[in-house]
Amino acid sequence: MLGREYGQNCSAARTLELIGERWTMLVIRDVFSGRRRFDQIQDSLGVARNVLSTRLQLLVDEGILERRAYQEKPERYEYFLTERGLDLWPILVALIGFGDKHLSASEGGPPLVIRHKGCDGIVNDRRICERCGAELGVRDAYGAPGPGAERILGNAA
Amino acid sequence: MLGREYGQNCSAARTLELIGERWTMLVIRDVFSGRRRFDQIQDSLGVARNVLSTRLQLLVDEGILERRAYQEKPERYEYFLTERGLDLWPILVALIGFGDKHLSASEGGPPLVIRHKGCDGIVNDRRICERCGAELGVRDAYGAPGPGAERILGNAA
Repeated sequence: MLGREYGQNCSAARTLELIGERWTMLVIRDVFSGRRRFDQIQDSLGVARNVLSTRLQLLVDEGILERRAYQEKPERYEYFLTERGLDLWPILVALIGFGDKHLSASEGGPPLVIRHKGCDGIVNDRRICERCGAELGVRDAYGAPGPGAERILGNAA
Repeated sequence: MLGREYGQNCSAARTLELIGERWTMLVIRDVFSGRRRFDQIQDSLGVARNVLSTRLQLLVDEGILERRAYQEKPERYEYFLTERGLDLWPILVALIGFGDKHLSASEGGPPLVIRHKGCDGIVNDRRICERCGAELGVRDAYGAPGPGAERILGNAA
């Protein structure tokens, strides 16, 4: 649908080529949330198994996810974010920030808050801890149920 | 493809429902870059006219874009970001940040840099001016050709 000429030299366009289908960022969100196994992700997204399988393989091929065996007979894998995959965190934080502001369905506030591992302060959408002011990377933070949470999510990567 | 049960209470999922097709963020990128007219956007994306027309209408219906007439006979419109649309800026900045780091095709560096209107410093992917340290909003910044630019883009909103 999109011509080749769009964004020949645009970093946003290139990123969208990589993650520009809704399911992609949802798979990545799931892995960030600690859903590492095929069945967990499949259950979370409700996507057909063959489709999810292809998508996961693509993300492995693109160097976003890494597969590690956790069982041998039968072979079973868990998915982890690579360094490159972890660098998608700012995008996820920005998506959450917009949704919290404009699309929240919960009356009580955001369903998820991101917290600083160091001081437990809330992390804002610049990835800065509102308590101690530290500029955080993905490994400095974790996801925790917010005031609008209906259920508890796993921790972030 | 995605089941209804995914992310019932997830701000990232809701945002992706709104902007989760690649073309959507590319249209928004174009309007941020100063391409406000149908033909400019169509030319930039190479998308079929009827498709683009439907997409733009959807973004107007969703309150992301606003249409303003600039000519009466025949009627012609320009598209502007609403306040809600302007709040997509952090997502765009995050997409650019990832692309600059991992997907850059330019040897010289990023094709586009974001600069602070106040002091012309470079704005990083936390939307902080690297020169003066100010935390910036979308109206405080503009897009400028970076070291890897092949052609000059218009200014950001």
